Amino acid sequence: MHIDDMILVSIDDHVVEPLDMFEKHVPSKWKDLAPKVILDDKGVERWIYRDRPTGVAGLNAVVSWPPEEWGRDPASYAEMRPAVYDVHDRIDDMNANGILASMCFPTFTGFSAGHISHAKDEVTVGMIQAYNNWHVEDWAGAYPGRFIPIAILPLWEPALAVAEIERVAALGFHSVTMPELPHIDGLPSYHDIEYWGPVFAALSDHDMVMNLHIGQGFGALRLAPDSPIDNLMVLAPSVSQLAVQDLLWGPAMRAYPKLKVALSEGGIGWIPFFMDRSDRHYTNQRWLRRDFGGKLPSEVFREHVIACYVTDKTSLKLRHDIGIDIIAWECDYPHSDSLWPDAPEFVLNELDAVGASDSDIDKITWQNACRFLHWDPFAHIPREQATVGALRAKATDVDISTRSRKEYAALYAQRGI
Amino acid sequence: MHIDDMILVSIDDHVVEPLDMFEKHVPSKWKDLAPKVILDDKGVERWIYRDRPTGVAGLNAVVSWPPEEWGRDPASYAEMRPAVYDVHDRIDDMNANGILASMCFPTFTGFSAGHISHAKDEVTVGMIQAYNNWHVEDWAGAYPGRFIPIAILPLWEPALAVAEIERVAALGFHSVTMPELPHIDGLPSYHDIEYWGPVFAALSDHDMVMNLHIGQGFGALRLAPDSPIDNLMVLAPSVSQLAVQDLLWGPAMRAYPKLKVALSEGGIGWIPFFMDRSDRHYTNQRWLRRDFGGKLPSEVFREHVIACYVTDKTSLKLRHDIGIDIIAWECDYPHSDSLWPDAPEFVLNELDAVGASDSDIDKITWQNACRFLHWDPFAHIPREQATVGALRAKATDVDISTRSRKEYAALYAQRGI
Repeated sequence: MHIDDMILVSIDDHVVEPLDMFEKHVPSKWKDLAPKVILDDKGVERWIYRDRPTGVAGLNAVVSWPPEEWGRDPASYAEMRPAVYDVHDRIDDMNANGILASMCFPTFTGFSAGHISHAKDEVTVGMIQAYNNWHVEDWAGAYPGRFIPIAILPLWEPALAVAEIERVAALGFHSVTMPELPHIDGLPSYHDIEYWGPVFAALSDHDMVMNLHIGQGFGALRLAPDSPIDNLMVLAPSVSQLAVQDLLWGPAMRAYPKLKVALSEGGIGWIPFFMDRSDRHYTNQRWLRRDFGGKLPSEVFREHVIACYVTDKTSLKLRHDIGIDIIAWECDYPHSDSLWPDAPEFVLNELDAVGASDSDIDKITWQNACRFLHWDPFAHIPREQATVGALRAKATDVDISTRSRKEYAALYAQRGI
Repeated sequence: MHIDDMILVSIDDHVVEPLDMFEKHVPSKWKDLAPKVILDDKGVERWIYRDRPTGVAGLNAVVSWPPEEWGRDPASYAEMRPAVYDVHDRIDDMNANGILASMCFPTFTGFSAGHISHAKDEVTVGMIQAYNNWHVEDWAGAYPGRFIPIAILPLWEPALAVAEIERVAALGFHSVTMPELPHIDGLPSYHDIEYWGPVFAALSDHDMVMNLHIGQGFGALRLAPDSPIDNLMVLAPSVSQLAVQDLLWGPAMRAYPKLKVALSEGGIGWIPFFMDRSDRHYTNQRWLRRDFGGKLPSEVFREHVIACYVTDKTSLKLRHDIGIDIIAWECDYPHSDSLWPDAPEFVLNELDAVGASDSDIDKITWQNACRFLHWDPFAHIPREQATVGALRAKATDVDISTRSRKEYAALYAQRGI
């Protein structure tokens, strides 16, 4: 595989929502209730909704800063690289990194809209709809063929979630973001099929993938109170395993054969161990012997899951044991784990080092993701224009140099936004 | 490798403490305070200490029962295979399974004596000493060369733990059992070096391994309240990763270069992923850059850890990435995951399937464990008598058939114990 011939589709990136995102999408009667950004008394810009702050505006959006500055989140939009929130700049950064298409998770709403779901009413449903409309029209819609839309849902009432799944399916979404562990958000767990059954059925009926991004469920780990921040950062993918455990050993995957689950940023290295342990548990603990329809747990896992990784150099040796059809690479732009702007080099080096064939590489870098998400990468852009080489050729003028938060703030002031 | 030429040393098995274990080891002034077994009003035998029941007597001691009966713990000693608690029968079962030597974790005291440490006083120190004396004299001492002694410690006061480490070191112990996550037992976490530093120093000074068996720290996972028992059983090794995270990224391993940690029943499959993720975190998150003395976290990990597994068929392909010198097989007798009586066949099949050399096999089945624990396997038994073939030749009369709890109870009554 020549690097210029690679095709990269990243199904885990992030958008920091632009300041004006709600302007044209919220019904006029609720205009005053829409989330908005305020500057708090510590000089940090925060989204606020129904009088409650929802967290910093630019969580971990550190791309292109010098690594020494990564310790704090951006205090304001001014400090961020504009491509974090501006779709036109984002396309430039994607081109520079050879990324054909990107699926962008939300930031201020939380990965499962948990940060705005404290007000459980029709207004919040309206805001969630406004978010999804903005996402598909103004973000993904600005550059057809470059973004895979992903929707947020009202999850405090299954019927509302089902209605929004049906609504966004009609708008072309094949992807929703949901919590890894809903019980950590105070919702019933995925074992509660009376609650989640209608949601799983609606997702199945509309070929919709539930994407479980690491982070939401982190509170499931009762870490030592004096543990350093490294613990959170190194251990976050452990929670993907807890999430799959609930879905595989509870009723979800077994009762909904078409349910599809993406483990966003979950990594792949723990999967062979988890599958072997699940199979051994099934065959050895005969007094339990859950009904997997005559299959092994690992087979059911492979029918339902796509496993997403940024870097996993040793475990890629086991790609065929994991399942070469269920692994998808992801970029994680603009977070600190992102490979921008050298993703093509990094990814190809890692795959070459384990002896991956061209077929393996294509599956991992785009084919698996596109198949799983029902997304045709060449519907708007012909294949020969979709490669790393072709995209980078359009980005020769993109400045990829490192720049401090202070420099970004100065440039922002210059532009007089 | 011919199966009869294998040597098997298992550093994770379990003893269910015999009824009379305290009789000759507790000072006479405290005789009445010693833990004893009572029959509760549900017909279950429980150890009781200072008026508090400590759990069932035979946790998960299901060996040789039909698998359909594994769902409940034994209600009484009568229902258990005698080799669970009787050292003479145990030797027969070890011979039948080709096991040269075994390190047996405690049962009723909890893996870190947590079940008897509610009474934090000199009496409990006396009981812990009595336990250790019984373990080294009556259990391990009954058959020199067949058991690797492992001690329990009073952990509620570091000075007491240090004193007991020094005492048992003089008795020939090179192993202690400690909690995976002390903060789950209400103790300071392993990050608190003011508390644990003297303990780590004493362990280092006496070439003593701290063994962290899965189970103690399970409460660190806030699982869904309606999750099935499968979750606990499949996910238990996740906690080994949390434990290592604290020891590797906190000060313990970095400040105590001789500290040795066994991850008992932790499995090996998660380790390549954890090491890669740790190294990537170290190299990528330069704003943190903890001081690993110029080494990578994975290198420090390999200097301190031995990783113990019962079965891990896919991940054994990565044995050289993990480190061929830090993997040790274990049997887990008499629990439901145990491979008795077919350990030699099972282990060899699994290692042959991944193309392990004779050298790899010897390292994994005995050499690594013996080196790590400073234990000479041939001090009492010459090598030619230590093999699977030689041991099994002594056990041709051992009944290895499946037998129900009811049949065991009838035999127990016949023997009139």
